[in-house]
Amino acid sequence: MLTIVASTSLTFNSRAEHRAWLEQQAALPAGFRTGTATFGFTPREAPKPAKMTLTLIALEQPTENFAAVFTRNAFPGAPVLIGRRRLETTRWGAIIINNKISNVCAPDGEAASEQLCAKVGELLDLPATAVLPSSTGVIGWSLPVEAMLHALPTVMPQLQGDSILPAATGIMTTDLYPKIRRAEVAGGSIVGIAKGAGMIEPNLATMLVYILTDLAVPRAELRAILTRVIGPSFNSISVDSDTSTSDTVAVVSSGKVPCPDLAAFETALATVCRDLAEDVVRNGEGIRHVIRVRVTGAADESAARALGKAVVNAPLFKCAVAGNDPNVGRLVQAIGKHAGAAGLALDPARLQLRMGGIGIFAHGVFQLDPQKEVALVEHLKSAELYQSVIPSDGIYSAAVDYPPHERCVEIEIDLGQGADAAEVIGGDLTHEYVSENADYRS
Amino acid sequence: MLTIVASTSLTFNSRAEHRAWLEQQAALPAGFRTGTATFGFTPREAPKPAKMTLTLIALEQPTENFAAVFTRNAFPGAPVLIGRRRLETTRWGAIIINNKISNVCAPDGEAASEQLCAKVGELLDLPATAVLPSSTGVIGWSLPVEAMLHALPTVMPQLQGDSILPAATGIMTTDLYPKIRRAEVAGGSIVGIAKGAGMIEPNLATMLVYILTDLAVPRAELRAILTRVIGPSFNSISVDSDTSTSDTVAVVSSGKVPCPDLAAFETALATVCRDLAEDVVRNGEGIRHVIRVRVTGAADESAARALGKAVVNAPLFKCAVAGNDPNVGRLVQAIGKHAGAAGLALDPARLQLRMGGIGIFAHGVFQLDPQKEVALVEHLKSAELYQSVIPSDGIYSAAVDYPPHERCVEIEIDLGQGADAAEVIGGDLTHEYVSENADYRS
Repeated sequence: MLTIVASTSLTFNSRAEHRAWLEQQAALPAGFRTGTATFGFTPREAPKPAKMTLTLIALEQPTENFAAVFTRNAFPGAPVLIGRRRLETTRWGAIIINNKISNVCAPDGEAASEQLCAKVGELLDLPATAVLPSSTGVIGWSLPVEAMLHALPTVMPQLQGDSILPAATGIMTTDLYPKIRRAEVAGGSIVGIAKGAGMIEPNLATMLVYILTDLAVPRAELRAILTRVIGPSFNSISVDSDTSTSDTVAVVSSGKVPCPDLAAFETALATVCRDLAEDVVRNGEGIRHVIRVRVTGAADESAARALGKAVVNAPLFKCAVAGNDPNVGRLVQAIGKHAGAAGLALDPARLQLRMGGIGIFAHGVFQLDPQKEVALVEHLKSAELYQSVIPSDGIYSAAVDYPPHERCVEIEIDLGQGADAAEVIGGDLTHEYVSENADYRS
Repeated sequence: MLTIVASTSLTFNSRAEHRAWLEQQAALPAGFRTGTATFGFTPREAPKPAKMTLTLIALEQPTENFAAVFTRNAFPGAPVLIGRRRLETTRWGAIIINNKISNVCAPDGEAASEQLCAKVGELLDLPATAVLPSSTGVIGWSLPVEAMLHALPTVMPQLQGDSILPAATGIMTTDLYPKIRRAEVAGGSIVGIAKGAGMIEPNLATMLVYILTDLAVPRAELRAILTRVIGPSFNSISVDSDTSTSDTVAVVSSGKVPCPDLAAFETALATVCRDLAEDVVRNGEGIRHVIRVRVTGAADESAARALGKAVVNAPLFKCAVAGNDPNVGRLVQAIGKHAGAAGLALDPARLQLRMGGIGIFAHGVFQLDPQKEVALVEHLKSAELYQSVIPSDGIYSAAVDYPPHERCVEIEIDLGQGADAAEVIGGDLTHEYVSENADYRS
């Protein structure tokens, strides 16, 4: 298993503190420019005013060195279908991203995305095939192509090479804050931004990640490295188990800085991906507690990861965590349900469970007493990101727009069966999640 | 596929109307008696006062003809472990059920259940092995054996042969209402009761079902029939995807009435199971909409059922339904996520989707317009069981304690691939669910 640990243990006391830290992270690698433009339009399927932001990431010179992975959802959006083809093209020169509408199974969706790529190519003197399109937003609606074509030229004067923060903000929908992570390697840098996860806006489910580097990593190596780092980062998180139709992780190298040490690059990229993945969960819809599940003693890594995913996706355990309720019975229920359904041979006599470092199950039986209950409640409270506020209109919303800390509810599951391990990060299930996805009508 | 349709389309305007209907359903088959007793106690692991009800189902004469299926959870409760052994015994004479504590992975849990069976045997002049124990409630806590042994004799004077309603009520925890279904076949009857599903009480996850019949169906046939009817009934529902550690479905025949037509018996039992299963969902935690997914045109039935389960377990779609929001994009996302993850070959061009009978997807693209949106909202509203009321203390609870109707949100998924089909019943994801599982501290 590729082992990656969290690179930071940050705390922020205010939005301003967090913003200052983001600005430190945001310096663009050499060879990239980004810009955004926002405009109003009226969706065809539900005629009422809406706003869309276009975000353009442009290379000074097109590059052969790019990599991307896309959703496994069987109904991928048009930009994903195009993006898969773009992996076979010779050069990428730009990425054009829109929020608000995801362009999934909409009539003439691919033609719409190709029109946008052609327009970007015209503005940047590139072939359309050198432009990666990306969309996030309502599934099923059609892109307002004419309005987008009209707005695209207004992005050009906004292009700048200093900061990725405008792009990290531009791809947001109802994310509470932009997400940026960077690493410095051998005189170059890796800077990634992420949008998601969960249904950031009612109707919308997408995680989009763009990682830019000036380090000259050839295409074949870049793709192999991305494939390896995806598993323990973006494939090890879950907000609500709902795989989006548009998930995209793209890595682009401008090649401005030589990269003598590919191993160091891989480690740095893995850390950027892992930290962005946790950021995505920490900013996941309605999440008040991030839950980190470490499965050890497993016979193989994929089984360990699947078990971790089952725990962070178990609604009843998630609700208990939301309520600062150390309901360890539900944890055992979730493990047992997955093991029973997946045919995972599990020996309760060898299983050990800890929450917040406190032993709660061993030798086939629970290890509980009233004192442990008090300590477990304290652990849950210490990992809370904000307190839920009872709203007068019944619509719950998150009480912070920055991550106050990076603490997690720590679950350790030792299967006592083998030497493999995996770590999975997820979150609780809260009134804020239900409000975001049920109470606001689209 | 065994085809079973809902046997009723009932509406109830009040708890009293529903209660009158339950009383009609409740006549016990010949040869059975039931009784209950409630007492107070203090749990060892969390010392504060609690109440428990014991429910005893007794046969006038022990029978060789019984069948049961149990949870697939890898951490089954002690009663399930004992129950599996009881399947090999020669005769059953009684079932003893307690609520409040589920007796799962508690120290000496099996010994505790065996003590109770021995006491029931002593009272009814049966060997302990002729008694099936069943428990539901908090996972991880220990049964208050002494208090239970003390209370058991007080059940005896309550035993009566008229109505199963006291038993249907006795096994409840925070179920909103008792669940009873009956069928009449060839001069005999089949009467079933159910408790669950979901976490009926914070800390608790169990579905318990007991079906009594006076029809003389031999053990081997009874078991074969139960195995067949479980698939399209109890194995085709989901409230929150969380398989309990204690799920039990037991069928017992007193043999008082000859059963010349096993096929008629099977059809009647299947209907009782299917209707009870839907009752369990309709009374599921926080459920405001029952969702019925019919998957047709599938290559095989199990794949169809798995897809239906994936839809009723998709949190974002469930939240949209809760909000009367016809968010068909999330429906397609859920189908595509499952197909992608399960390796289900799916041709979007052949897929057809309908909600409430209205076509929403065909020929690979959505079929949406503002008029359909209005009609879909009406369909969702017509299936709502109660309106959510914004609580002043932030703790949501269901506004009815009877099922006002048997309407469902109707989803049809035609895969256009084969001749197999399946129907799955689930529910929405509401503030009431989160409140029940997070806001009340155990």
